[in-house]
Amino acid sequence: MELSKIYESIQEDLAKVKDSLRSIIKVDFPWLSKQLGYVVRGGGKGIRPALTLLAGQFYNYNLKYLLPMAASVELMHTATLVHDDAIDKSVVRRGRPTIYKMWGEEPSVLLGDYLFAKAGEFVSDTHNPRVIKLFSQTLATISSGELNQFLGAFKVEQTRQQYFQRISSKTASLFCLATESGAILSEAPEESVKALYEYGYNLGIAFQIIDDILDFIGTEEELGKPVGSDLSQGTLTLPVMLLLERYPENNTVKRLFEHKDKKSMEQTIELVRNSPVIEECYALASEYRAKACHSLSSLPENTSRQALIELAEYIVERKN
Amino acid sequence: MELSKIYESIQEDLAKVKDSLRSIIKVDFPWLSKQLGYVVRGGGKGIRPALTLLAGQFYNYNLKYLLPMAASVELMHTATLVHDDAIDKSVVRRGRPTIYKMWGEEPSVLLGDYLFAKAGEFVSDTHNPRVIKLFSQTLATISSGELNQFLGAFKVEQTRQQYFQRISSKTASLFCLATESGAILSEAPEESVKALYEYGYNLGIAFQIIDDILDFIGTEEELGKPVGSDLSQGTLTLPVMLLLERYPENNTVKRLFEHKDKKSMEQTIELVRNSPVIEECYALASEYRAKACHSLSSLPENTSRQALIELAEYIVERKN
Repeated sequence: MELSKIYESIQEDLAKVKDSLRSIIKVDFPWLSKQLGYVVRGGGKGIRPALTLLAGQFYNYNLKYLLPMAASVELMHTATLVHDDAIDKSVVRRGRPTIYKMWGEEPSVLLGDYLFAKAGEFVSDTHNPRVIKLFSQTLATISSGELNQFLGAFKVEQTRQQYFQRISSKTASLFCLATESGAILSEAPEESVKALYEYGYNLGIAFQIIDDILDFIGTEEELGKPVGSDLSQGTLTLPVMLLLERYPENNTVKRLFEHKDKKSMEQTIELVRNSPVIEECYALASEYRAKACHSLSSLPENTSRQALIELAEYIVERKN
Repeated sequence: MELSKIYESIQEDLAKVKDSLRSIIKVDFPWLSKQLGYVVRGGGKGIRPALTLLAGQFYNYNLKYLLPMAASVELMHTATLVHDDAIDKSVVRRGRPTIYKMWGEEPSVLLGDYLFAKAGEFVSDTHNPRVIKLFSQTLATISSGELNQFLGAFKVEQTRQQYFQRISSKTASLFCLATESGAILSEAPEESVKALYEYGYNLGIAFQIIDDILDFIGTEEELGKPVGSDLSQGTLTLPVMLLLERYPENNTVKRLFEHKDKKSMEQTIELVRNSPVIEECYALASEYRAKACHSLSSLPENTSRQALIELAEYIVERKN
């Protein structure tokens, strides 16, 4: 299934979201304007703003509020990427040099702050105290998830529970904000707000599991960044966790986290690729996809519901 | 004049602001909780939250909204300090090691993001779309001011106009937010909102000029950080600008920015201290103080107006 097909009912409004995002480029500070242009034109699939718009189509679809909300969600995502790249010292993302690579850590921090601020301006245009508070709470959750990940780096002793907590904070929380805010701003009944929140949560978990799988089985070309990026940051993701559970006697990962050497890195990637853990991870991602789709059953049957189901399929089947 | 005397009418409510700030420490993440405790108990004069409360005392003083606003303003300030220290690689602030010194750049970035988020949560509790938008706009202004400063570092060719633009963005904007939001949340008429905004702007400029003076004439003990911090970051502040205007043939500053050597640094500090530029800077700060106080003339005469006048005096006369 193509994304453009899934996005059919929101295509025009998604283009308006992109226009809103591009509007932030107009500032009287040429350097800043250039960098803003670079980051907002950086591609990306637009999954988060699409979620807001689709979640907003079940009741009173009001673009006046859904548009700034969708822009806000996407911009918060962009801001976290700019900060993450500075923190991880990542030099390439989506096949292009990162802001960190081009300008270093300091401007990345300040540009990220600027983007958070602009995301905050967009969300304030919803005039809805509930989603405005959710926006800030989500940013707090994401930052604490990232902090958790940073502090746990290069530690082999981690539980699945810790993994799920971490990806819930750093990824699923923003998916929840996207869907929940869409529901709230379209005046959905509380039961539907909850259903769309749960859809967002389960979809976000599935999304991150797939990201963590692709980090091993994708190619650099598909990923737009080096294979094994998480490992090189010392981040223990689900595939490696399952590998450690399955082969507790194997010390490759431990050696990698101790010595950070290229050989152990390559061996770990090979081990993951050639073991059944990838299939196990896919099975887990599919469970979350199924839970996500199940959450939708209480919602009115319409094209959006179908699109959300297809989006969940797309997310699990994607190659990048 | 003592700060405690100036704060007399808001003393109790300022204590409540501190309680609100301390409430963010309660999180189920021990490392984060400890760092939050460290930063929110870090001292500081509480000038920004005091401004919000005092500005709120002219019309309908409603603590339900002024309290989260004051907490939000202070927390945004704290967040920017955490990021600034990481960017400037500052190891000491207010006489204590910085988060950067203790944990490094990456946790500083994420902790700062977390603090921005909590500031955003507080401001959302005002339920006032106008101040919520102002909050985000202010953060954008501060970040772009800091970016400007970073990109201009170690450049001697800068105009006074650029200096005032920079300090307007990085410092005065938050003073404006503090006073303007206090006025808006107390349902002040637009004329008074404007007057309090102007007071905040001029006070903020005076405040930063004094900060830039103290960076040269203060002692490390008074400042709680090394003398000449700005210079060591390559930041051209008003005293050095006036020095360059007055002695265009002297090459000490140019040499310092080219070689970043200790000797040129000490010579520049000595030059500034022993020249009339400090007096000129004080005269300029006093002009802005006078403008700030003049802005208050249209407001009702009450104890708050007197306190704001005294606060402006305090700011110009302070030693740290």
